[in-house]
Formats: sequence, structure tokens, C-alpha cells
Amino acid sequence: MCRWLAYSGTPVLLDDVLYRPAHSLIDQSRHSKLGVETTNGDGFGLGWYGSRNEAASGSGTGSGGGGRGEPSVFRDIGPAWSNRNLREIASYVRSPLFFAHVRASTGTAVQETNCHPFRHGRWLWMHNGAVTDFHRLRRDLCLAVDPALFSAIEGSTDSEVMFYLAVTFGLDQDVPGAVARMAGLVERVGKEHGVEHPLQMTVAVSDGDRLWCFRYSSQGRSRSLFHSARPERLRELHPDLAFLRGVDDATRLVVSEPLGDLPGAWHELPEGSYTVSPADDADHHPFWPEPA
Amino acid sequence: MCRWLAYSGTPVLLDDVLYRPAHSLIDQSRHSKLGVETTNGDGFGLGWYGSRNEAASGSGTGSGGGGRGEPSVFRDIGPAWSNRNLREIASYVRSPLFFAHVRASTGTAVQETNCHPFRHGRWLWMHNGAVTDFHRLRRDLCLAVDPALFSAIEGSTDSEVMFYLAVTFGLDQDVPGAVARMAGLVERVGKEHGVEHPLQMTVAVSDGDRLWCFRYSSQGRSRSLFHSARPERLRELHPDLAFLRGVDDATRLVVSEPLGDLPGAWHELPEGSYTVSPADDADHHPFWPEPA
Amino acid sequence: MCRWLAYSGTPVLLDDVLYRPAHSLIDQSRHSKLGVETTNGDGFGLGWYGSRNEAASGSGTGSGGGGRGEPSVFRDIGPAWSNRNLREIASYVRSPLFFAHVRASTGTAVQETNCHPFRHGRWLWMHNGAVTDFHRLRRDLCLAVDPALFSAIEGSTDSEVMFYLAVTFGLDQDVPGAVARMAGLVERVGKEHGVEHPLQMTVAVSDGDRLWCFRYSSQGRSRSLFHSARPERLRELHPDLAFLRGVDDATRLVVSEPLGDLPGAWHELPEGSYTVSPADDADHHPFWPEPA
Amino acid sequence: MCRWLAYSGTPVLLDDVLYRPAHSLIDQSRHSKLGVETTNGDGFGLGWYGSRNEAASGSGTGSGGGGRGEPSVFRDIGPAWSNRNLREIASYVRSPLFFAHVRASTGTAVQETNCHPFRHGRWLWMHNGAVTDFHRLRRDLCLAVDPALFSAIEGSTDSEVMFYLAVTFGLDQDVPGAVARMAGLVERVGKEHGVEHPLQMTVAVSDGDRLWCFRYSSQGRSRSLFHSARPERLRELHPDLAFLRGVDDATRLVVSEPLGDLPGAWHELPEGSYTVSPADDADHHPFWPEPA
Repeated sequence: MCRWLAYSGTPVLLDDVLYRPAHSLIDQSRHSKLGVETTNGDGFGLGWYGSRNEAASGSGTGSGGGGRGEPSVFRDIGPAWSNRNLREIASYVRSPLFFAHVRASTGTAVQETNCHPFRHGRWLWMHNGAVTDFHRLRRDLCLAVDPALFSAIEGSTDSEVMFYLAVTFGLDQDVPGAVARMAGLVERVGKEHGVEHPLQMTVAVSDGDRLWCFRYSSQGRSRSLFHSARPERLRELHPDLAFLRGVDDATRLVVSEPLGDLPGAWHELPEGSYTVSPADDADHHPFWPEPA
Repeated sequence: MCRWLAYSGTPVLLDDVLYRPAHSLIDQSRHSKLGVETTNGDGFGLGWYGSRNEAASGSGTGSGGGGRGEPSVFRDIGPAWSNRNLREIASYVRSPLFFAHVRASTGTAVQETNCHPFRHGRWLWMHNGAVTDFHRLRRDLCLAVDPALFSAIEGSTDSEVMFYLAVTFGLDQDVPGAVARMAGLVERVGKEHGVEHPLQMTVAVSDGDRLWCFRYSSQGRSRSLFHSARPERLRELHPDLAFLRGVDDATRLVVSEPLGDLPGAWHELPEGSYTVSPADDADHHPFWPEPA
Repeated sequence: MCRWLAYSGTPVLLDDVLYRPAHSLIDQSRHSKLGVETTNGDGFGLGWYGSRNEAASGSGTGSGGGGRGEPSVFRDIGPAWSNRNLREIASYVRSPLFFAHVRASTGTAVQETNCHPFRHGRWLWMHNGAVTDFHRLRRDLCLAVDPALFSAIEGSTDSEVMFYLAVTFGLDQDVPGAVARMAGLVERVGKEHGVEHPLQMTVAVSDGDRLWCFRYSSQGRSRSLFHSARPERLRELHPDLAFLRGVDDATRLVVSEPLGDLPGAWHELPEGSYTVSPADDADHHPFWPEPA
Repeated sequence: MCRWLAYSGTPVLLDDVLYRPAHSLIDQSRHSKLGVETTNGDGFGLGWYGSRNEAASGSGTGSGGGGRGEPSVFRDIGPAWSNRNLREIASYVRSPLFFAHVRASTGTAVQETNCHPFRHGRWLWMHNGAVTDFHRLRRDLCLAVDPALFSAIEGSTDSEVMFYLAVTFGLDQDVPGAVARMAGLVERVGKEHGVEHPLQMTVAVSDGDRLWCFRYSSQGRSRSLFHSARPERLRELHPDLAFLRGVDDATRLVVSEPLGDLPGAWHELPEGSYTVSPADDADHHPFWPEPA
């Protein structure tokens, strides 16, 4: 069980989002309100994309490549709340699209390769939830990963295997479809092993241009997931958060649990749905597993 | 703010005390009930003495020396609850006298040299509490440490300086007196700097033969401290804890907060008092700071 | 590339073997002479069995179970040479059979689950060497692991997969046979992938009663492996090492590279051979891969 | 004993300097040629300043403040060579002035607060060398630190105390003078304690605008220190290093030992001298301790 946050919009200093708000993600690492576990101290991670024009001009921060290029990742074991390097990096990095994750292990080893986000090429992936009885399903799920990707699996979490399944099933061509086929495979393999409710997930995934966030569980009782209201509404609610004044209308936060408890600031994603940022015509779309 | 546990009595496997009881210290590291902080994830430590006859015969575990010799210490940063090495050591070490501590930093660096217990020769020391405004008093307190001991200070906590002050003031000759003079100095220096309530402490200290535990605060509102009831009473209350069947009458646990919540199992130490184990004539004695 | 040491014989304090000798394993972690890498600073590990009678009487150190029971394991990332907990444990633990390993990663993540020794039930396993192009063979090798064991694989090293292959192929019944079948499988899978010399290994494995050490490579140019001369010879050569005076004739050390450089103290194991301790009729036996 | 590198000039990606050159600092962490120790695996650190115009426009990377503002610091225990976060950060950060340091402890605890560079306000400080018998001089040196700064000392190294002494003696007004008075005090205190050659140092210090590097030892046998030749000369010698093509004439590297071994690329600083970057009229100036 974990807590995560994904940001997409006007470039901001990570510190403004990660540390400044009341009940920030860093607070949640120690005192989660909605989580299964109140403490998320078993490692953490950041993943961020550079600004497009910075990369283009070559005069800004690095991270090279075309478009926004490959994201940078910073992960460490131990709690986020007392990590000084995290604070330094959050005070330095300004990004238009970033992920942050605090982990609560349920027995899996506490090691960087089990920390989110996971990266593959341009992709970032993070997850809160679980494949039920993963130790029994792990082998069959790993076998379904593209053999060329098998050796990219470095850790022992369900989350990383879910990621490489989604890559296998076409993340590059069709994100919602690839995630649906991943979920479909987990459910099929789970059922073959007699697991009643195999999947429980809230997932964020990005290629640096767009951000997709999914909420789904086999049982229809998914972990919480919220997206922020439109910035003009947030500014009214959070007059204390200076960074909100400068963000454009497409800016959006998606979080495991709300930062602060202002009525109207956060909208819960419905069961079995996903959202895309920058938002397309709808705030959210239905999500269902598909055969892999 | 921290949680600690000190054991003195019949040698037991550390695991029996640290992991098996309901609301064990390891549980408290994640979900403290009485602490100022509910999470104590900023490092932890164990300190233990060998059995006297093992050391004498030379056929048992190491730790050499005369009597029980120097204690062993195992400390690490990161949370206790997910540390596999701690679990291994607790499942291996059998000891008649040991300390365990889980730390919640209030800003001081998370590093092994700030983890308890601290060791000096035969002595172990651990602490829950704080010297108020320690950053302002630190220099004067360090200057009062015996110059020959100054370079033994490796970390940046108030707790370690308190320890070396107690060593300076005669821990080897008179434990309650040395601790009283340490407390007296902290109060005097605090008052010189305009600190109203300079000291808040629960301290455990041992030389391998006896265990002393102190509860005191300048304000008269000390952090909680409890000692266990006599073993026969504990056995009635904890029929599930097998190790209790084998312990003798002198066995005692002193803890920041009770393991489990059985009425009658735990006695709170009064404000301004200390206790010695194996118990002398009284369950506890009054404690007051003295001029250093 | 790594360095390792395995001890079998009269119980000794680990410190006597790990730290006291000239060019000890701890020295080798920083200044290996024979290794491919001179520095072995990417994690380390200890594994040790309790003394049989301690476990039987229940009065000694823990580690329970029948016979010598399950071994204890202590592993950490970072260099061995500066690890204080390693020093504490080595000064405390007395054991008749133990493993120590210092690791030099060749790119695999530095994490505890990649540190040796690996443990499964009563078994300990450690390795120096490599499966050539492991990233290409990893999937096929993992698939050959008993499906019931697949989820026991926690890390990403070739060494751990080799271990679970050996368990799969009957370590419980026939150690040299199981290791030979593991080696045979690695060579077959390697050749199917066009790898000319798939395997390079020196392996130590124990069930707590006996110690087996193997030296083999597909190319016939194996990493170095040495066993110690008979204790009477060692005593003549190392009059400074007090612990040698008390060890019986069956005591033996097997090491990646000699501790110290005394002529006559160390015998190199031949290419394609293994040794058993306590020694049986021969000092060593031929070893060849077998079809899995 | 340690190795360090300081860069001043045209903003570059840290990766270009830290990882790309032959015998880079990261290589030196494992295989130093000129160091007292060949291995520098006991922690590492980076410190960097933002670009002036980035800070001014507010559109670039963070780190706020006036001028270049406070530097960012990233430090970790464990070896630099296998640290993935270091690699990520070096591939992301572009800076006109940065420090990098790899540490070899001589017994002092391996902890972040003992890693270089040290930061105080706008200042960065790093050091290779030692105060001889520091444990005997530590108290007297700490007492000479401005009492208002005493609590800023978080670790247990001589290097950090030297830094706060230099701050105490006027780093803000006169860098060479403050360092000279620090050195003078160390020599005086050392001699009072009967230490023949109290100081051995190569120090880098910066306020974000300029970089000062000092080489001095009481014995006149200082650790090595080199500065790079003019960029046009470097370009001739290193046609393979693409980043050199874009750097201006004021760009300079100062290093404990040369990157690569091209004749003419590196100039050794003389005994008892310091250098300033951007260079003033002279390549170097004489340096002598002064009374504190």
C-alpha cells in the first residue's frame, strides 16, 4: 500500500507541490488518512520530465533527447519525510510533468528496484494496489512479458511486472488498451489459480506528453484516487499556495488522497475509469479489462 | 521522540520480546499510541550483554572480557519494521540484559551515530525525550563533558551529550548521582539561556550487571514510562507468551509504552523517579537533579 | 566479481577469521590481489550455522530447529570494510560453519537481495563468477526453476538463479549431482543462445553439516579457489593467530584468494573439481556438468 | 583521504565532467592512482550553483535567491561508482560552478553529515587531507568556532570543523585570509598538543561567484592538486570530449588528480599556494597560515 501523486501542467518547482501544501504527499508518507497503512516509509521515488523547450534549446537542464526525452528518476530506500536529498532535488527541479510515490511494503524487500516510479525508455509508471496472491501468480505473469523485456525486470514487485506487461501489450500504440489487456491477463491468470479478486490498482503512466491515470479493481472496491479541480477553483480554495497563481488551465494533479481537505478542490475518480491530462473532451472514461 | 524497551532477567531470545508480543516495540515503531509521534522510523538500535557464564567459560557467544564484558551494538538507519537484519539478529541473540530503541528524529540527521543505544566501555545508554532548544545549549553542554571524552561524541543528538555528561559526572561510581548531576547541569545551562523547561527525559542505563531507568522532566510532565509486573502476574495475563514460563522472578521489562493493553501487566513509574533491576528493596526511588 | 570465504570446523569467533589474518577477507574487499576487480565494495554478507549442541540444549544462541537448524544471514549494501554492524556481529558470533562474501557488481543493482549468501531452508549458497550474457539467458534459466520456487527469487543476479536451479535439481538428495545438473543446464541454454563459454563459477554450498566447494568454468579457466592446509601446518605458518591453536584437524577454510601469502598454507583446487568438508577420503573430486 | 574536483566556467552537464573523461572522478573513486588510498568508497557528494540568468529569470531551475543563490547539495553514503541516483542527477544538472567529492574514511563514521561538500548559506567547502591527531585537537578547535555556529556542526570530521573555523574567521570578507587564519589556528593548537605537522590540506571553497582552491601542509609535502590548462589547449588534447568545444576561456577544472594522463593538460599547483577562478592576473598566489 502506497500513496502517489502525478502532476501535469505549467512547469513548477517540485517543492511547491510535494512539501508546501497542507497534508502534502510527504506528510502522507508519515500520516496517511485514507490508506490501508498509515505509514508509507519503505522507500520513495520521483520521476520527472524536462521542459520541452529547455530540451530543444539545449540551454536549460539536461535530460536530452527529442521531445521531452527520457525522464529522470530518483529513488531511495527509507522514509521520504527525513530524506535530505529528496528535499534538495525538490527544491531544484522544475518540471511540467512529474510523479512522486511513497511506498509501504507488504513484505517485499525494501530496495530501490522495488521503488516507484519505474522507467522504460520514455515511459514512467507507478502503482498503488496489489495483485492478490502475487507470489502464486508471479511466474505466469512474468512468462507473459515479452522475452526481450524479461531481463529489464530488476525488482520483485507486482507493480513492475504489471508495467512490463503493459509495455508488452502495446503501451507505445494505445495506452488505455495496453493497460486493459494487462488487467485482463492478471484477472485471467488469477482466476486460473483460484484467486477471487485478483487485481486492485490505481496506476499512473506517462510518455512525457500526456498523463493517464487508472482506477480499477476486480472487486469493484478500488483504492481511492482523486484529481484536482480546475486551477481557477484551486486558487480560490488555496490562496496561500503561491505557485497556483502562475499555472495555466490545463494543469492537473492526480493523487491517492487529497492534499488538504478543502471541499470542492478534489474530485474522486469513479470506479473503473481513467483520466487523461491534458484533459480531452471528458473528465474521465470508463475502464474495463480486455483479453490480452 | 522515540520508543524504547529495556530487558533484565533470565536470558531470552530477543525475538520473544521484540516481535512476539501484541503491540511490540516493532509495532510501536509504526503505530505508537502514547508517543508524541505515531511513527518512529528514523533509525533504530539494539544493545545487548552476553550471559555471564558464557563469557566465563569462553564456550558460548563471544563478547569476551570479564563479567559480562562490553555489550554488542547493532544500529541502522531506516525503519525497524522492515529491517531484515534486525529480525535475523533478534532470532539469534539470547541475552539477559538488552536495550532496544526506535527513533523519531525531530530534525537531527538520520545516521547511525544518532541512533540509540550509545555505548562507552561497559555502559549502554538510551533516551526518549529532549533537551529543549538543544541547538542553543549544545556548546555549553559539550564544554562540560570531560575533555578526554569530547572526541568520543560522534553524532549530533542531545541524548549522546547527556550520556557523556553522565559519564563525566561519575557513572562508574554512582549511577543515580551521575544522572542527577547531568540533569542538574542541563537545567542550569538551560536556565542561563532563558529556557523555561530545559529537560524532558526517560533514560535507561546499564553496566551489564544492573539496569537503571529514570523518568524526569523539568516541567513535571514527563514522557510515559512503565515497568512490568512480577513474572507470575505476567504469566497469568500473557498465557500465549511461551518465553514467560521460563523466566525467573527478578525478570523485568521497562518500556516507553506497554506491550499490549492488559490491565495489571504494567505499572507506570511516577514522575521524578527511577527504578533499578534486579530490583532492590523498593520498586522505585525518587529522582531529583543535583548541582553538577 | 567477488571474493568469498567458507569456514568449517571447530567453532570460532568470526572476527578471528574475518578481520585478524593479514590480507583478510575484509582487506580483500578493498584491495583484492587476484580478483578481476580490486575493489569489492558493492555489498557483503555473512551466513552462519549455530553450534549443534547449543541448538540441542536450547541454552545457547538461538537459531532453533533440529540439528543445526536454519542458518542466520546478515547482508548489507555498501562496503564491508567500513561497516560497523559487521564488525559487531563478527565479534559476537561463534560458529562451526559460516560463509562470508564481498561483492563487486558488474552492473546489477546494489541491494541486499543481490548479496550473498543466499538462503533456502537449511541451505546456504554463495558464488563468485558469472553466467556470460546472463541478461539473454535469464528468462530460460528462470523458467527451468521449479515453479514452486519461482517466487523465492528476490533479486536479479545469476548467482541466485543458479542456486534455485540447484535446489530444483535435487540439492537435498545429491549436492554434487544437483550442482552438475545446474551447470549442465546453464551450458546448454548458453549454447542455444550462441554463448561460447557460458559458465564461470566458484560456488560454496552447505546444509549446516557439510560444506561443498566447486570450481568450474566452461572455458577451463576458472576463477581462483584455495583450501587451507591441515591445521597443524597452519599453526606452524601462523603462530600469531591464536585461534588456530584450538581448532581440530577437520577444520578447513576455503577462499577465493589466500589470506596472507605464506607458502604451504593454501592449496589451489584444480580446474573442474570440488571439495567436501569435513573432508572425506580425498582432498578433492572431479566435477563435470551433467544433463539437467 | 579523498579525491575531489571543482569546476568553474561555462555551464555544462555534470555528466560530461564526472563520467565521460578517461580516469574520471568516478573512476578515481575505485582506482585512484595518486591517492594515499586507492579506494574512495565511503560516501560522496555533489554541490552545485544554478546559472545566474536562470535564477534571475525565474524560468529555469530553482535554487532561488539573489545572484546564484544557495547551492544544492546531494550526498550519500556508499560508493559513488554504483550509485544510480548520482548518475541521474549528473545527467540532469547543468551548472557553471560545481563540486564533486569521493571519500575514503580513516575511521570516522560513514554518514551523510561527514560527506563533502559542506554548505553554509552561499558557501560550499570540500577538503582532502587531515588534521593530524584530530581526536586530540577536536575540542580546542570546536571551541574556537563562533558559538553561534557551533550547532551547525553536524558530523565528526576535521573538514567540517575547518570550514566553520574559516567562516568564523571571515570567509564572507576575505577568503584567502580566513583560510589562512584557520590554518594558523590548526597549527597553533596542534603545536600546543605536541603535534609536529598538524595540517595537511587541499581545500576548495566557493560563494557561487568565484572558486578558490588551496594547497598547503605544515610539512611542506601536500597532497596533489592540479588545475586544467586553458580550454584551447584542452581541446587539442581531448578532441573526444565534445563539451570542451562549447566552453569559454575562463573555464577551469581543479582536481586532486588529473583526469586522463595527457601531457600538458594539467598544471600542478605549487606547495603553499592557492588559485582563484575565474582567474585573476596570476595563475596562483602564495599561501601561508596566519595568526587567528
